[in-house]
Amino acid sequence: MPDAVVSPGSAEEVSEIVRFCRSEGIPIVPRGSGTNLSAGTTPTAGGVVLLFNRMNQILEIDEENLTVTVQPGVITKDLIDAVEMRGLFYPPDPSSMKISTIGGNISENSGGLRGLKYGVTKDYVLGLEAVMPDGSVIKTGGKLAKDVAGYDLTKLLTGAEGTLGVITEATLKLIPMPSSKKTMLAQFAAMDQAAEAVSAIIANRIIPATLEFMDRATIRAVEDFAKVGLPLEAEAILLIEQDGAEAAVNDEMQLMKEICEKQGAFSVELAKTAEEANNLMTARRSALSALARLKPTTILEDATVPRSKVAEMVEAITKIAVKHQVTICTFGHAGDGNLHPTCITDARITEEMHRVEAAFEEIFKEAIRLGGTITGEHGVGEMKAPYLEWKLGASGINVMKLIKQSLDPDNIMNPNKIFGKSEKKRVVVGK
Amino acid sequence: MPDAVVSPGSAEEVSEIVRFCRSEGIPIVPRGSGTNLSAGTTPTAGGVVLLFNRMNQILEIDEENLTVTVQPGVITKDLIDAVEMRGLFYPPDPSSMKISTIGGNISENSGGLRGLKYGVTKDYVLGLEAVMPDGSVIKTGGKLAKDVAGYDLTKLLTGAEGTLGVITEATLKLIPMPSSKKTMLAQFAAMDQAAEAVSAIIANRIIPATLEFMDRATIRAVEDFAKVGLPLEAEAILLIEQDGAEAAVNDEMQLMKEICEKQGAFSVELAKTAEEANNLMTARRSALSALARLKPTTILEDATVPRSKVAEMVEAITKIAVKHQVTICTFGHAGDGNLHPTCITDARITEEMHRVEAAFEEIFKEAIRLGGTITGEHGVGEMKAPYLEWKLGASGINVMKLIKQSLDPDNIMNPNKIFGKSEKKRVVVGK
Ligand SMILES: Cc1cc2nc3c(=O)[nH]c(=O)nc-3n(C[C@H](O)[C@H](O)[C@H](O)COP(=O)(O)OP(=O)(O)OC[C@H]3O[C@@H](n4cnc5c(N)ncnc54)[C@H](O)[C@@H]3O)c2cc1C
Ligand SMILES: Cc1cc2nc3c(=O)[nH]c(=O)nc-3n(C[C@H](O)[C@H](O)[C@H](O)COP(=O)(O)OP(=O)(O)OC[C@H]3O[C@@H](n4cnc5c(N)ncnc54)[C@H](O)[C@@H]3O)c2cc1C
Repeated sequence: MPDAVVSPGSAEEVSEIVRFCRSEGIPIVPRGSGTNLSAGTTPTAGGVVLLFNRMNQILEIDEENLTVTVQPGVITKDLIDAVEMRGLFYPPDPSSMKISTIGGNISENSGGLRGLKYGVTKDYVLGLEAVMPDGSVIKTGGKLAKDVAGYDLTKLLTGAEGTLGVITEATLKLIPMPSSKKTMLAQFAAMDQAAEAVSAIIANRIIPATLEFMDRATIRAVEDFAKVGLPLEAEAILLIEQDGAEAAVNDEMQLMKEICEKQGAFSVELAKTAEEANNLMTARRSALSALARLKPTTILEDATVPRSKVAEMVEAITKIAVKHQVTICTFGHAGDGNLHPTCITDARITEEMHRVEAAFEEIFKEAIRLGGTITGEHGVGEMKAPYLEWKLGASGINVMKLIKQSLDPDNIMNPNKIFGKSEKKRVVVGK
Repeated sequence: MPDAVVSPGSAEEVSEIVRFCRSEGIPIVPRGSGTNLSAGTTPTAGGVVLLFNRMNQILEIDEENLTVTVQPGVITKDLIDAVEMRGLFYPPDPSSMKISTIGGNISENSGGLRGLKYGVTKDYVLGLEAVMPDGSVIKTGGKLAKDVAGYDLTKLLTGAEGTLGVITEATLKLIPMPSSKKTMLAQFAAMDQAAEAVSAIIANRIIPATLEFMDRATIRAVEDFAKVGLPLEAEAILLIEQDGAEAAVNDEMQLMKEICEKQGAFSVELAKTAEEANNLMTARRSALSALARLKPTTILEDATVPRSKVAEMVEAITKIAVKHQVTICTFGHAGDGNLHPTCITDARITEEMHRVEAAFEEIFKEAIRLGGTITGEHGVGEMKAPYLEWKLGASGINVMKLIKQSLDPDNIMNPNKIFGKSEKKRVVVGK
């Protein structure tokens, strides 16, 4: 529980709050919608939770420069809808987009279903206004395609999980809406066939907009939840979407169909209507919520590997689950090598939780061994802090800590996150 | 002049050099091919110049993950040619690509003619190996489409101009080679028509691969140098290239032709052969070299504005040149809002140089006023350090200095760059 919750209305107010908290040594935890999956907004050091529900305006859609400028509390989907009404496209679409905020997306550098072709949130952040831990307000970048005036503070703050400052405004890049789009579902009788198809598509020099993977357990849970007619007999499916000029889309969809069939798909079918396509994408987006209904506790991970290693990683996850006798369902952004092995379990059964932890440790180790990382899009937060050194080494962590200490010497900005536990600094009432 | 020049052969050797220099307080200036345009490799604080001519190997082209891993001394064009032989595409193509190195490109975050559609060097750097100012070797990122394990050190080091560490290896992203490409030359009788055409193309939701601008003086100098048949009667030209699926390319080229004509182009012609197209691009790439032949001194700037402000900026440059009675030729990556107003002058005429300086100061001020920046791709180096605060404000510079000081407390990595003059620390022989 936080000691206080504050909803500022402007950068100036944020600045005042930050100055006050700094002078009193009170931790600040910025919070969008709290949908992050790494305990990134849990105020484990106490202090003030900063909400952005009053800073939720789309300030400008600039059709000449293809940019949108927003306050941090804007809901992702509201932004996407607003620009699409003007025929513009903001690709980053985390599955949580109906509730997540842009401030949260930026601070986690969130990915989404369209990330393979279009990249992640960071690729769309052109400029930021931020309140730094000393209360100063800085502006980085701008409505600019190019800017090399000093260090790239825009990209440093993006993905910093609220540990380096508070984002109070963002200018984001838009792109023209692709003129056509096709969606396809490929069904496989074996997981490794689906995973191999992912590598084969990329190796054939095709970059689809979406290339998503779901295993049997996930398919069943999602179908039970969303009822869109997913194939219950498949061991794994790939959800594939391509967009762009119509002729090119048709050619590439045909090619990808052939590649999937060559890798053993027993069915590859195009969505017949936009509605059917949309239902498939929405179903995929509901994977986590669907799995969460199965058992009291859901622990989802975010291991990411080079694309060519997806098959190996999927196989390793299966073996690790068997070894530790835990139920792991796997889905994710396969084209990005970003998998979400999800353990459905029960936190009340301590003995099982130990096995779950052991299984995830092995999954992280395997991801690192394959040249991957412990988190592709969910951030380190507090939950993955113990594993960060596996990816970065002591020298890498040291560099990051030097940066953190230089900008936030009193460690007031979202303490305990990324680097793990520090001392608890509750606000003492009446002091 | 440096005090010493050292050519290390490995990251370990770089690490030893850095440790030694740190313990002795000796500045280190990393140097690729020295083609930067901001005095970024001039050892104005003395010390050791570090060359990468022995670290010039392409280590791996990974066709499954679409990555290439290189040492910093690889020449840009050699890399581009090597991957194109495998049907892969590395878009960042600074005009200096025949001589510039990848280490230099990364450290300046260089742009190029294909930047409008494909982005700049930073968009292709997936992972780095770097020797930090304390001699430690870190590895960032990897062959990964996504990685949010801590702060983005990859992007922080990219564009850091050698002031935060030495890059000893880089893993770069490749993309599939577009299947077709068309090139077109549009001629205008007035500069503002060409500039307006740039805005109109983008506002019509077309993002061509290349959208380059040259004014009359530049056209004449280039034609005299390259002899490719550029139109000497035009007041300004746009060089336009689009790539992708053939049908889409044809449609968009036709649309852009119509837009140019609507803005007043008196001639818009497609290159008839690949050779003719290539000649046009090569001619544009030679703009700076061609202008440099006209007078003893060439001073080229790099002001960048939002795309919608290109016309206003071009107009302002013309007025400023008249006001200060200096010759300024303008060319550049108009689609990115990145212009290179180039003054041809003579450094020996002190009085003229004062006017040149005054003119450039006004150009920078105007760029900032229009929401732009003092440098789009050439970096701050030592030359633009005095103007950095205009873009960043005192708070922005302060944040950058804190980062610099935290990672390089003894200021040995390329001192005087970005933040301007510090004390000279020559190596005293025999001490
Ligand atoms: C069902 C579900 C599906 C999901 N799908 C995806 C997915 O596909 N891809 C993906 O990447 N993630 C996904 N997530 C994770 C999560 O939704 C994203 O990380 C999202 O960006 C968080 O947004 P939020 O507004 O909830 O931020 P919060 O969770 O409130 O905050 C996230 C982080 O940002 C910081 N922060 C928030 N606002 C600011 C600010 N203004 N200034 C500074 N720091 C700030 C917080 O301190 C915290 O560290 C999913 C989550 C759920 C529950
Ligand atoms: C004719 C001409 C045309 C040009 N056209 C363009 C253009 O179109 N677009 C563009 O962006 N630029 C252009 N430039 C500028 C320049 O070529 C680029 O900045 C290029 O990237 C520099 O590469 P380099 O190898 O020469 O690096 P250098 O000039 O040697 O170094 C550049 C910077 O990088 C640092 N550095 C070099 N190697 C390392 C390393 N391994 N580790 C750490 N730091 C390092 C140096 O200290 C310096 O700060 C042009 C220059 C010329 C002369």
